[in-house]
Amino acid sequence: MAEQIAQEAHYAATVLKTLSNEERSQALEEIRLGLINAKKEILEANERDLEAARASQTSAALIKRLDLSKNDKFDSMCDGIKEVADLEDPLNKVTLARELDEGLDLYRITCPVGVLLVIFESRPEVIANITALAIKSGNAAVLKGGRESLGTFKAMANVINKVLKGKTKVPGDAIKLIATHSEVSDLLKQDQYIDLVIPRGSNKLVRAIKDQTKIPVLGHASGICSIYVDEFADPAKASRIVVDAKTNYPAGCNAVETLLVNEKILGAKIYEDLLKALVSAGVTLHMTAQLLDSVPGNLKSTYPDKFVAAKDSDFRGEFLSLDLAVKAVADVSEAVKHINTHSSKHTDAIITENEPHAQVFLNGVDSSGVYWNCSTRFADGFRYGFGTEVGISTNKIHARGPVGLEGLVCYYYQLRGHGQIVGDYVGGGGHRKFTHRELDPKKVKLD
Amino acid sequence: MAEQIAQEAHYAATVLKTLSNEERSQALEEIRLGLINAKKEILEANERDLEAARASQTSAALIKRLDLSKNDKFDSMCDGIKEVADLEDPLNKVTLARELDEGLDLYRITCPVGVLLVIFESRPEVIANITALAIKSGNAAVLKGGRESLGTFKAMANVINKVLKGKTKVPGDAIKLIATHSEVSDLLKQDQYIDLVIPRGSNKLVRAIKDQTKIPVLGHASGICSIYVDEFADPAKASRIVVDAKTNYPAGCNAVETLLVNEKILGAKIYEDLLKALVSAGVTLHMTAQLLDSVPGNLKSTYPDKFVAAKDSDFRGEFLSLDLAVKAVADVSEAVKHINTHSSKHTDAIITENEPHAQVFLNGVDSSGVYWNCSTRFADGFRYGFGTEVGISTNKIHARGPVGLEGLVCYYYQLRGHGQIVGDYVGGGGHRKFTHRELDPKKVKLD
Repeated sequence: MAEQIAQEAHYAATVLKTLSNEERSQALEEIRLGLINAKKEILEANERDLEAARASQTSAALIKRLDLSKNDKFDSMCDGIKEVADLEDPLNKVTLARELDEGLDLYRITCPVGVLLVIFESRPEVIANITALAIKSGNAAVLKGGRESLGTFKAMANVINKVLKGKTKVPGDAIKLIATHSEVSDLLKQDQYIDLVIPRGSNKLVRAIKDQTKIPVLGHASGICSIYVDEFADPAKASRIVVDAKTNYPAGCNAVETLLVNEKILGAKIYEDLLKALVSAGVTLHMTAQLLDSVPGNLKSTYPDKFVAAKDSDFRGEFLSLDLAVKAVADVSEAVKHINTHSSKHTDAIITENEPHAQVFLNGVDSSGVYWNCSTRFADGFRYGFGTEVGISTNKIHARGPVGLEGLVCYYYQLRGHGQIVGDYVGGGGHRKFTHRELDPKKVKLD
Repeated sequence: MAEQIAQEAHYAATVLKTLSNEERSQALEEIRLGLINAKKEILEANERDLEAARASQTSAALIKRLDLSKNDKFDSMCDGIKEVADLEDPLNKVTLARELDEGLDLYRITCPVGVLLVIFESRPEVIANITALAIKSGNAAVLKGGRESLGTFKAMANVINKVLKGKTKVPGDAIKLIATHSEVSDLLKQDQYIDLVIPRGSNKLVRAIKDQTKIPVLGHASGICSIYVDEFADPAKASRIVVDAKTNYPAGCNAVETLLVNEKILGAKIYEDLLKALVSAGVTLHMTAQLLDSVPGNLKSTYPDKFVAAKDSDFRGEFLSLDLAVKAVADVSEAVKHINTHSSKHTDAIITENEPHAQVFLNGVDSSGVYWNCSTRFADGFRYGFGTEVGISTNKIHARGPVGLEGLVCYYYQLRGHGQIVGDYVGGGGHRKFTHRELDPKKVKLD
């Protein structure tokens, strides 16, 4: 069953990749209109899901994520489809053009990755979002939602499938909606047909998926972000940035989890101000023994439960709460070393007015985002100006950091000749030499 | 043990990535000189490996690959290091520059992938080649060679390690040479420290490695390449190209394995000429029942053992010999469908003078190389003008087709601010808007 689903999506992908940007964007517009027309049924299905969730003592946070009727969530979801449709076409861009010999031209051209498997939890609007991203980028997608949103999911799936089949050139199988839970582990085995897995949900979900599949996974299992406050930090910037990075949205993967301070500032006003800013913002500081001793007495007595002893594991995991692990380092090099050893390669920042120190940090830290004098919370596709966000990747290949549509795209080579054979050329048995002359990719006409 | 090796390479990578292009290229020059100075010892060790191989009835092909003394193989190997050193620096290229707000600039910058695990078989010159590629691209590498070349391997490893430690800024652990066989499977488990596996050897080796690891593998497990001869093919081009693609180097992954012919040409002169060209070049044609019947009687009597019945599996695997599976298709769309179902997404070609047919093929085939009127054998990093070849990838993400240095490179984001926090901006709780103004990447000064 899983194999058949994956295979059908694979065939659909080979058709979808040949459609023009207009045809793909037009399909998104039809989906948007179809969803708007079916708003009543979808919200009724959503209300039934919500009732079932409330009856089964589901957490308030999950119920909030599940609820599609609140504020303008439904309309925003539909607007989001149009925003994706209006993005620049990521496909068929010529990124390299080279004459290998007279009448033998090589082009490198962007193309879809193929088939995406998207696994998400309770937020039903992800269906619309990922459908839009997949079709816009020419990828087929197999979508698997959470159990709680099953009714909403089915109602939206009906609309999307009916619209695709009736009103667009996109094959119906290009978006496959899986309503049962049993198939996930089988789908994760279909590496012959599925090219990329995108988990949208908790870190636990991502980790579980990464452990189960050989298919590449675009995502991050955790966001262990650090900020290093250098001895040349501006005091006001340090306090503002660290407080923002910790408290703006503590559950975010780009929230700071570890604070590294240069030991030269221990006891100085900048250090005291920084601690005060954090604890007065409600943050509990998990400090090494060395640092616990260095907390000024007046602070300790005013905020008695905000200074606690750190465990080793505090520097190796996420709090996702108003907690922060704090440690002193001798210099910027030690900060870099700590981060490269402990971080999850997500986003790390230095606060300093000293440019050489900043350079050591920017060059040395091996994370997808390396920041100077700004909050780690900026690590986000919308803030980066990508127009959308497929996910934040802590992988080391293909796509890193906040990933927009370009993460769903790869490339292939076209070689256009006039009967050339390798046997005529040097290295293949002949004497003809390659010209290897660069051409202007912008001037290539593909059709 | 494997974990320690991988961890040490990981730390070395974090140092190596901070070195300048000059420092990396200088290290390659020192290695080149070191190998030239040690030519005598290395060739003596190689001779001992060869003697052992001959004594153990090793195949002639393997002995040929193992032999470093023949022709100018040793000198070519050393020249190759200089060629890699002279390539353009793949690192620290700014590929995107965007002002997010006044004084808050985002740069996307190329960087090394991290730690490579390179597993190769008998050819000892791969050590020099991959050491050069890794250091030039700022990656640490763990190298595991075949048992047959162990002595040569150790002699070269001694030189490389001594040179790195004594004469360069590259940490000695950046190139780790593994001389025993036991550690491979353990190394393949070190996905925490190893970022990319590059197998250099037989398809069997690649497949075995892909089955054993969760680390991304850059390579191709097979090259099932097809050529489709359209009804509008030029007869001379068709024969020349198919014969070249099959016979120029039948063991190559870019050799053609399947010939698809438009059924309209069955019985025509172009078809007869094509068959004749192939069988007279020594190729055995494995034909479907329909095609076996269509072979002209005079050809069959002249070449009685060159026309045989095809099995289904002939269209799903590699011959790597002077054998070719042949099948008729109704039109270019059926050819595309056959290829997308059976090929290994390596390289496929159409022979036609009809541009609309060529377009259907070029747009529809989902392979890393899609060719028009030229031989599949052009799929090669040197022929593409990359100056080197790390491998040929049939993956769908990161790098596809012949891969040069750029396959060893990814990117990260730098964000340089002046104290900005997310809480001030729309979406983060504030009212400030992002400017998202494109900057010229060429004008960015990183240091």
